[in-house]
Amino acid sequence: MIAWKNLDTTAAYAKLQALKDHVKLQDAMSGESGAKRVKEYSVPMAGGLSYNYAAKQVDAEVLAALKDLADEMQLTEKYAALYNGEVINTGEKRLVLHQLTRGQLGENVIADGVNKREFYVAQQEKAAAFAKKVHAGEITNAAGEKFTTVVQIGIGGSDLGPRAMYLALENWAKQNGCFKMQARFISNVDPDDAASVLKDIDVAHSLFVLVSKSGTTLETLTNESFVKDALKNAGLNPAKHMVAVTSETSPLAKSSDYLAAFFMDDYIGGRYSSTSCVGGAVLSLAFGPDIFARFLDGAAEEDKLAKNPDLLKNPAMLDALIGVYERNVQGYPATAVLPYSQALSRFPAHLQQLDMESNGKSVNRFGEPVDYVTGPVIFGEPGTNGQHSFYQLLHQGTDIVPLQFVGFRKNQAGMDVNIQGSTSQQKLCANVAAQIMAFACGKQDENPNKSFAGGRPSSIIIGDQLTPEALGALLAHFENKVMFQGFVWNLNSFDQEGVQLGKVLAKRVLAHDTDGALKEYSDLLDI
Amino acid sequence: MIAWKNLDTTAAYAKLQALKDHVKLQDAMSGESGAKRVKEYSVPMAGGLSYNYAAKQVDAEVLAALKDLADEMQLTEKYAALYNGEVINTGEKRLVLHQLTRGQLGENVIADGVNKREFYVAQQEKAAAFAKKVHAGEITNAAGEKFTTVVQIGIGGSDLGPRAMYLALENWAKQNGCFKMQARFISNVDPDDAASVLKDIDVAHSLFVLVSKSGTTLETLTNESFVKDALKNAGLNPAKHMVAVTSETSPLAKSSDYLAAFFMDDYIGGRYSSTSCVGGAVLSLAFGPDIFARFLDGAAEEDKLAKNPDLLKNPAMLDALIGVYERNVQGYPATAVLPYSQALSRFPAHLQQLDMESNGKSVNRFGEPVDYVTGPVIFGEPGTNGQHSFYQLLHQGTDIVPLQFVGFRKNQAGMDVNIQGSTSQQKLCANVAAQIMAFACGKQDENPNKSFAGGRPSSIIIGDQLTPEALGALLAHFENKVMFQGFVWNLNSFDQEGVQLGKVLAKRVLAHDTDGALKEYSDLLDI
Repeated sequence: MIAWKNLDTTAAYAKLQALKDHVKLQDAMSGESGAKRVKEYSVPMAGGLSYNYAAKQVDAEVLAALKDLADEMQLTEKYAALYNGEVINTGEKRLVLHQLTRGQLGENVIADGVNKREFYVAQQEKAAAFAKKVHAGEITNAAGEKFTTVVQIGIGGSDLGPRAMYLALENWAKQNGCFKMQARFISNVDPDDAASVLKDIDVAHSLFVLVSKSGTTLETLTNESFVKDALKNAGLNPAKHMVAVTSETSPLAKSSDYLAAFFMDDYIGGRYSSTSCVGGAVLSLAFGPDIFARFLDGAAEEDKLAKNPDLLKNPAMLDALIGVYERNVQGYPATAVLPYSQALSRFPAHLQQLDMESNGKSVNRFGEPVDYVTGPVIFGEPGTNGQHSFYQLLHQGTDIVPLQFVGFRKNQAGMDVNIQGSTSQQKLCANVAAQIMAFACGKQDENPNKSFAGGRPSSIIIGDQLTPEALGALLAHFENKVMFQGFVWNLNSFDQEGVQLGKVLAKRVLAHDTDGALKEYSDLLDI
Repeated sequence: MIAWKNLDTTAAYAKLQALKDHVKLQDAMSGESGAKRVKEYSVPMAGGLSYNYAAKQVDAEVLAALKDLADEMQLTEKYAALYNGEVINTGEKRLVLHQLTRGQLGENVIADGVNKREFYVAQQEKAAAFAKKVHAGEITNAAGEKFTTVVQIGIGGSDLGPRAMYLALENWAKQNGCFKMQARFISNVDPDDAASVLKDIDVAHSLFVLVSKSGTTLETLTNESFVKDALKNAGLNPAKHMVAVTSETSPLAKSSDYLAAFFMDDYIGGRYSSTSCVGGAVLSLAFGPDIFARFLDGAAEEDKLAKNPDLLKNPAMLDALIGVYERNVQGYPATAVLPYSQALSRFPAHLQQLDMESNGKSVNRFGEPVDYVTGPVIFGEPGTNGQHSFYQLLHQGTDIVPLQFVGFRKNQAGMDVNIQGSTSQQKLCANVAAQIMAFACGKQDENPNKSFAGGRPSSIIIGDQLTPEALGALLAHFENKVMFQGFVWNLNSFDQEGVQLGKVLAKRVLAHDTDGALKEYSDLLDI
């Protein structure tokens, strides 16, 4: 029997509170102790990755308390409830099934009268068949010419995840002979976004993927109209250039305005939709369905690892609990995501949504206010760029910000240069190794301005190369981490009521139904 | 006589501490009171902008205390000392002269035997003349063909600011007939960054701008070699495709490897260099020197406003002090920068460096530890994208994050579409107005999960359009805000010793001179 309860009602949490500042990283990471930690504090992930937490402020005692918390919170059982189809999204009374888009983790899930795994696979196959026809020149523009560009029109989860995944594999695909079509993305309701993309592409050879689960997302429908105007102005028939990704019940589903429609459903949250057709359509068109399938395989393998009840063999659960320790015991307000990989340039923006939209909440899953802090601020940029930018604060600022590094032994594009005795790739890797140690151990200097206090915790996910499998594993790892943290904080991580009020007020502004300060702001902005 | 002193030694700070939670935004921003605040709490900026702080947690009493603090901290006098050429960067014993790159604010500054204003102007004129020759086809590639692309090679301040400025004006320039050359940027030592840019451009018609003040930045020199290899492999002479932006004393300054060299000096910090030749060369090549000059004019006008000793007429000082109130009295750990303008997509990344690298410090300008928090974490993405992403946490999370909005009445590209009775631009503006009110006032709902507590402070900078002048004003505003905050926190905002340790350790890794944990990490990463 699962008991949903608040973090501060558990015995493990009380024990954990007593372990504040228990590990002094400066000592733990020095000398033999440090070497031993790097070797031992490592968990295998899927896709050839591993999660190394040597430079986190944990030791056997803290880990034992975290294990107690995981058990007391029934994290394994709650995960099983989720993938077996319980109504985990209680606010919206929905199942949470994104893991089913990439594999069958438990029992068959039957909802709306269908086997949901079969439903998702069928949609993937439909998108795959469509992509293959586009690549083969069987689906073309009206002039019978091949499409060369795919443009995703979506916002939030229909944009950030798929965009980050596309950028992550673009150079890999080019290098490995599976780059089929370039992809672009239109998201912002700022008309300059769509205008800029449209100026840059060849619309006559572009296929547009309109993504909106409800079929009513105002930004997305506005940008669709923008694109349709551009197509018409170029003498083209929009219906020959557009496909829809939506739910079966949406107004877009059966419209003749689209060449095809691929379906998702209410059980896939936007920020968890990269492995559904929301990511599947654009990524299959860009790289081919086989590459998308490899990406799904990486995610599915990682999902399986998250089932392990042994905390020390479950990278997502471990990462989640260390994060809870940092947030609720150590009191750190933010986390920086720092991939040492240019291909992951937009991955931090995706994680920012995934994490902050899922767990940036103040009431528990029963609607009761919680008395502890929940999701942190998430931000990040690729290293080494960040080193020459905001790392100053991370090293010497007054607040401690835990760090999530990601690094790969090999680059993607296969080009490199040897300068001063080392390649760029070696320099990249040397920097991330150096940063971990600089943050952990610091360095005293007689000039206090040149002193580094250290004691700044980090973990690193290390892989051989950013392949489709590795990317899938990376994505699923963080989805599962956020899920486990939501369980610990007793939140519903799968709704987003906090975005509603702004929408309601924006409609009132557009209807000129305002007074007071809102009317004044509207006037200032000439609305 | 200027007294440099810690914030917590001032009488005004003690008074301010007593004003914690003094203004209840939910009340202040409601009804007539809210309308009055929006009208009154506004300060003109340069470039047609205004700074509106109606939705900040201030009132006459808090503002009076902030004014006392500004006076007691001698902010106006410290700014004057800076622009008149005192050694404000005490750690590195340097003047701080970026304002001189765009105007003469005070006395002539003579250093290294030259009038520095004249020096910066001469370098700008040299870059302008060079750009004009490139545009006129007087400086061409070896085949006598015009250059069509300019690629900046730099990292940190040599990348983020210029890149953000380029993106901010790209569509405006296209729309206004002054787009001369496309610009691209290579920064990361990850070889995939340079490889990706080089695959995407026509190297035979590309001019590369190598930016390194010292001439020794490892990432930048590595990327230069990468580019030189690519040029040689294409049968081209690198010396005919490269210019340098560096200091006169650097090894790059007099090298025959470059078509030309434009100089900066030690008095321009990297993150403050967008208005020097670091931004000037690439922006003059991309848009023409006249546009760059207009950008400088906007910045110069804004710098003048920052001289005003009347806090309520000095937008940068006011913004700075409200930020100190939020950080040190209210205890907020982060600030989000949210431009409702796609053109400002990388402006938050620039501000992240500017702010966190300047004021992310724990010792004062004399090297003594301070007992109060200093610079916050800065992050952000353009609206409306953020609304569909991390705004959930901003509205309903357990921590309060102050918000900096930016909005413009008109878009840049001149294309728009009318859907459901309003244009995209109107929807964009309606959203930012709505968000300010939703954050400030919140809304009670009988379902606690749909309740918004409100009380989340924001300010907005509003402009007519993002023109070169407006962009210059925006840039200078934040530079001056950060400077004033550094004065209040008694920091040296112009060095960055926190980036050094990582560099030292990375060199040791590359030299295989490691043991303990660092050696283990190096092994894991195959270095």
